[in-house]
Amino acid sequence: MAARLFIPGPSDVDDTVLRELARPQLGHRTQEFRELFASLRPGLRKLFSTGNDVLISTSSGSGLWEAAIRSCVKSKVLHAVNGAFSKKWASLSKNCAKDMAALSFQDGKPVNPQAVDKALSERDYEAFCVVHNETSTGVISDLGALSQVMKKHPDVLFFVDAVSSLGGVKIEVDGLGIDICLASSQKALALPAGIALASISRRSYLKAEAVEGRGYYFDLLELKKAYDKDETPYTPSIPHLYALRKQLDRMEAEGLEFRYKRHEEMASWVRAWAKEQGFPMFSQEGCHSPTVSCISNTKGIDFAAVKKALAGRGITVDTGYRKLNEKLAAEEKPTTFRIAHMGERTPDEIRSYLAELQKQFQVKP
Amino acid sequence: MAARLFIPGPSDVDDTVLRELARPQLGHRTQEFRELFASLRPGLRKLFSTGNDVLISTSSGSGLWEAAIRSCVKSKVLHAVNGAFSKKWASLSKNCAKDMAALSFQDGKPVNPQAVDKALSERDYEAFCVVHNETSTGVISDLGALSQVMKKHPDVLFFVDAVSSLGGVKIEVDGLGIDICLASSQKALALPAGIALASISRRSYLKAEAVEGRGYYFDLLELKKAYDKDETPYTPSIPHLYALRKQLDRMEAEGLEFRYKRHEEMASWVRAWAKEQGFPMFSQEGCHSPTVSCISNTKGIDFAAVKKALAGRGITVDTGYRKLNEKLAAEEKPTTFRIAHMGERTPDEIRSYLAELQKQFQVKP
Repeated sequence: MAARLFIPGPSDVDDTVLRELARPQLGHRTQEFRELFASLRPGLRKLFSTGNDVLISTSSGSGLWEAAIRSCVKSKVLHAVNGAFSKKWASLSKNCAKDMAALSFQDGKPVNPQAVDKALSERDYEAFCVVHNETSTGVISDLGALSQVMKKHPDVLFFVDAVSSLGGVKIEVDGLGIDICLASSQKALALPAGIALASISRRSYLKAEAVEGRGYYFDLLELKKAYDKDETPYTPSIPHLYALRKQLDRMEAEGLEFRYKRHEEMASWVRAWAKEQGFPMFSQEGCHSPTVSCISNTKGIDFAAVKKALAGRGITVDTGYRKLNEKLAAEEKPTTFRIAHMGERTPDEIRSYLAELQKQFQVKP
Repeated sequence: MAARLFIPGPSDVDDTVLRELARPQLGHRTQEFRELFASLRPGLRKLFSTGNDVLISTSSGSGLWEAAIRSCVKSKVLHAVNGAFSKKWASLSKNCAKDMAALSFQDGKPVNPQAVDKALSERDYEAFCVVHNETSTGVISDLGALSQVMKKHPDVLFFVDAVSSLGGVKIEVDGLGIDICLASSQKALALPAGIALASISRRSYLKAEAVEGRGYYFDLLELKKAYDKDETPYTPSIPHLYALRKQLDRMEAEGLEFRYKRHEEMASWVRAWAKEQGFPMFSQEGCHSPTVSCISNTKGIDFAAVKKALAGRGITVDTGYRKLNEKLAAEEKPTTFRIAHMGERTPDEIRSYLAELQKQFQVKP
């Protein structure tokens, strides 16, 4: 596989995984299917560090945002908002006609546990939603500290979006007491987009029993009923299941701990390079994401031009999250660019990429 | 491709289409993606015989059931129920907290247009939902006659599930005045499961603007907003889009009219064979589906055993829709078996399959 995508998803997928997508189809009510489905369980539980069910949805991660909200929230839900994706999840809750409260933090800042504690103390919420790793700003929030806060509010369900962190950084679902931890396939898991995964606690299911209007497609109880028979309620994307099986094997072969170390190493390189080049990180010190770095473009580099130049060489550059950059530009602040170091990317690839970038910076138009 | 699946979905997928799934990923906010997405439009419009948008959802067809209901129905919706799938769609509407009324017909019978007319005259419904081709019973309903009825009720939206018919039988969406016509990939379109398609009329969008609680993932207005930019609101299953592009080309090469004729021919063969063997059709005379035949097992053939025997030879047999057979058995009536003749299947394959089946019937246990 030639290194190509340095954007925060979709990520490049290894050739051996891609080939799994091209297998012939099979009936989804057959023993062969049930064996395929059941074979995914141990690897998924290890990935999430959980004894809970890990459900598979034929949708993007945002489908599972909706599953959590529609299935487990009657009315009142609190969302931490510290970037574009957490904002989108919050607005989804509103669009699902829930009584949504947003606890907002500045772009580039992590979610502050004390502020969450205070907000949860002031009102009876049914659930608290947080995006672990804000892809738009390269900020990772401290799930350990948030987990401590959640323990003080034992009646509130704890929902974590790990879309761009799972598979790149260790998340101990059971240790942290996360009720729903969701992720999509096309980021740090290095699978094609098309399926999403979520661990679901027993109390999430119990809550769902009391919630009306859950619908069908994202009803966690429908998914659970089928899951217990090693099936899905509707025909799933079978190509993605084969690919997932292969990718779980590859992760096991690499070793999850080594995988997380690889991400840390890539992130360190990017940060050191940025510092050396005189670019400040956009994310707050101490909260830099291990899977995607968001950097302030204080030198006014024309990333659209860099992107175009490198596209001709088969390398996809990220020009920063559009809406964030528009906002920053309007405030006359430096815009951002991002370097994703997730999935199959290696420290060597990151080093060559940084060298390529640097060369482009010197090109005069 | 070796003939394997004679079940009503998932269908076998041609090797050249499968190989498209294994292409490298690309960013979903790139020009390359937008070109891929836009390239699907003409073929999809031709397939649906429509000038409407044909939206693509990363979900199964049942996801689009939910999109239609959540986006376009405030409260009152009428469902024709004449089999397991129409029943499931009706129950989805109820689970979405809508005021759902079911107009029921006996298993094996088509939807009666006069009964629909009467029901629509008695109460103000916002939408009428019908399953064109009931996969569970092999019955196709007359969309032409239903369309005439709908013209008498111009304020009611007309939603058609064409999950197991689209691509196997001509559906003229604009001629019939269908507001939402939805289908999934893994039946007559002969693609892997994982995406679903729907044509959406302008008045469906207009209605959606007035409906609250549409959520995000299945909000037709979100899908539309992105569609107009040749994008999707969330990362779609890119492998399926490549496969769809290839399959639309293959359909164009075969010729849609020839494709529909192939299905008619296969269906005729199955019906003639059943008659010769002394098996009555389960579906009512004149309403036999061109894509899946449902036959009464009046001879008490042990299809579980036949399935097992042929599985050893790489052929997947359908043993009938489980819940229907359980119901029929409880009533001491003959159960059913189905033969799917959709997607890539050819008349020759159907003829060999029927010969194989016949041989199995003679095997004494």
